[in-house]
Amino acid sequence: MVAESAARGSTAFTEVMTTPPPADTSGPLTGLLDFVFADVWQRPVLSRRDRRFITLACVADADADRPLRDHVYAALNSGDLTFTEMQETVLHFAVYGGWPKASRLAMMVDEQWQHIHDERGEPVPPPASLLPLSTPSDPERRLALGEQAFKDINCLEFAPPRDHPFHGAGILNFVFGEMWLRPGLGMRERRLVTVACVAFQDAPFPIMSHVYAALKSRDLSFDEMDELALQFGAYCGWPKAASLGQVVEEQKQRVTAEWAAEQRTP
Amino acid sequence: MVAESAARGSTAFTEVMTTPPPADTSGPLTGLLDFVFADVWQRPVLSRRDRRFITLACVADADADRPLRDHVYAALNSGDLTFTEMQETVLHFAVYGGWPKASRLAMMVDEQWQHIHDERGEPVPPPASLLPLSTPSDPERRLALGEQAFKDINCLEFAPPRDHPFHGAGILNFVFGEMWLRPGLGMRERRLVTVACVAFQDAPFPIMSHVYAALKSRDLSFDEMDELALQFGAYCGWPKAASLGQVVEEQKQRVTAEWAAEQRTP
Amino acid sequence: MVAESAARGSTAFTEVMTTPPPADTSGPLTGLLDFVFADVWQRPVLSRRDRRFITLACVADADADRPLRDHVYAALNSGDLTFTEMQETVLHFAVYGGWPKASRLAMMVDEQWQHIHDERGEPVPPPASLLPLSTPSDPERRLALGEQAFKDINCLEFAPPRDHPFHGAGILNFVFGEMWLRPGLGMRERRLVTVACVAFQDAPFPIMSHVYAALKSRDLSFDEMDELALQFGAYCGWPKAASLGQVVEEQKQRVTAEWAAEQRTP
Repeated sequence: MVAESAARGSTAFTEVMTTPPPADTSGPLTGLLDFVFADVWQRPVLSRRDRRFITLACVADADADRPLRDHVYAALNSGDLTFTEMQETVLHFAVYGGWPKASRLAMMVDEQWQHIHDERGEPVPPPASLLPLSTPSDPERRLALGEQAFKDINCLEFAPPRDHPFHGAGILNFVFGEMWLRPGLGMRERRLVTVACVAFQDAPFPIMSHVYAALKSRDLSFDEMDELALQFGAYCGWPKAASLGQVVEEQKQRVTAEWAAEQRTP
Repeated sequence: MVAESAARGSTAFTEVMTTPPPADTSGPLTGLLDFVFADVWQRPVLSRRDRRFITLACVADADADRPLRDHVYAALNSGDLTFTEMQETVLHFAVYGGWPKASRLAMMVDEQWQHIHDERGEPVPPPASLLPLSTPSDPERRLALGEQAFKDINCLEFAPPRDHPFHGAGILNFVFGEMWLRPGLGMRERRLVTVACVAFQDAPFPIMSHVYAALKSRDLSFDEMDELALQFGAYCGWPKAASLGQVVEEQKQRVTAEWAAEQRTP
Repeated sequence: MVAESAARGSTAFTEVMTTPPPADTSGPLTGLLDFVFADVWQRPVLSRRDRRFITLACVADADADRPLRDHVYAALNSGDLTFTEMQETVLHFAVYGGWPKASRLAMMVDEQWQHIHDERGEPVPPPASLLPLSTPSDPERRLALGEQAFKDINCLEFAPPRDHPFHGAGILNFVFGEMWLRPGLGMRERRLVTVACVAFQDAPFPIMSHVYAALKSRDLSFDEMDELALQFGAYCGWPKAASLGQVVEEQKQRVTAEWAAEQRTP
């Protein structure tokens, strides 16, 4: 039973991390490792690839170098994320997790991408060109696009005022007028990263609004959101996951009520 | 098997939290809950009381209101911590976790202390007097005491320079010249809170120095430190716990080597 | 137009960081880099020097070594902050961001101060003497001074009870009885650091009380507070900035109403 569980944990670890498990599996952290790799990562509803976006956000938030390095490596080495998707994840994370932590993540991504190519004896492909941007340069058109994207993505009928540094120059001009609209990462993946980041940052309004929008838009199902909370809990800890879980329950009820009301009105 | 595990989880939850378990145990967080309460909290080496100091630091760091409230309540309601110990924990946490989070913790402690007395139909006892302080008031004598305490508590042969605002006015004058020396909380309990806080804050040097000093002073045994990392992992997440675990392994080796060298020299 | 924007970003980067921009500007982070350096840092209302205090608090919170190093270097190398101001910023940050992160910041400050002098071929000047302190040593007089400073700085008519370790030994005796009153850093600069730290730590009551006091005291204008939130958002991520922005709006209304009431009463 014990040996079987250890084998199960080791196999699961190798599958997720694409490297052999730690040699010493006798310490008290082993139970946690079994739980995380043999139980959480193997669960249905969210794929291993889905779980990577949540986990990458958590380890980039958590400031633990080795887990960050290992998960960046595993996500790219497994082929679950393309390099373009990983780079867009870094940019998306920068907005929701903060620029300094994203700088470190960006460095780690470049380093591990090089490392993977070294291991394979292949050259690193040349980078894709940033320009031309897919969003308009004209400030008026950008703000208008940002307002529309803000409403669509947040499932709201209003956008914040332009004439305000944080909202105008930050949120409308850059976050929704450019960042969320970039190609290279799907809306579903952006939702996974965003909810993990706001749950870590735990400012009450953003958690509520992003959980709501992810459910209301149907980009994530109710069951997928529950799994997100569990994966998040395994990597960011129980208290923040409990807090997220509470918001999820509230927003499920709100969305369910809104959908019911929409069906009643033609 | 499932029913047995659920009963085990429920019983363990009630014992730790001093309240009934959540009614709905069907969601994906249930597995995490069972793991945390039926496995981690029940482990040997650290007592339930010991685990409270680690957990309180983690939930106060994590900005999750309900877990914070529930763990403050449980720690006091169970009698595992006296009110004086809880208040000293707040002050100690303020230094290592930051005063803003400590302000919220302090408010929660007062609120739950009132709540417990209301439930019992008892009046809240009057507070103990702050003055006289047990540490000297004269700045020169305080700095000298702070330097000695810095060396003793950190197991170092030197203290930082006085003529430096952070080190002089902060570390020597207040943190080691007063805070660590206050009665009302044992050195062992201060170690548990400190290591949990530095592991959360994850600046490399403080983690290393506090893990080292807790082991070198023999205030915490090697096995106790391993259990600390596990309890911390359950509440602050796996990546930071893995990082802590790595530092613990390094510092165990360092301390073992130092003890061996000390035995060789008469 | 495109080349012009890239040149704008590079020029702005060099001006702020006092070093050449990154060579590779093809990745997806380039857009964010342009946004942060060519847009946010160049905005009016807050000076580049003002923005440094906010940014230093954010990068010290974020646990990312390279951004921390680069911003400490830039703040000192540009001459925007004196060494004394930087040291007081470390002490102030320690209280609101936690001592472990402050320890790392302190080490980085000493290291970069040395590095700057090495680059210039100049010796590092000797430190200023810590003693005598400018605040009273007698505990009773310190507590009285701490109570008055608590009221003045927080714009409140009451102070917390002395007979409470966190409030008495911590808040009144040290934080307001000494730290806030130290010379070497202006009240306006302390406000910038404090609001950035409480917004990062995001315990609701401290955010509210420090935003309120900064506005009520007129140490920061309404427009300056909006710019603070934008600068903070660029470095700590949008979720916490959105939360801060919400508190700012509420406190502007509260302060406006209070000022109107004060004008009506002679």
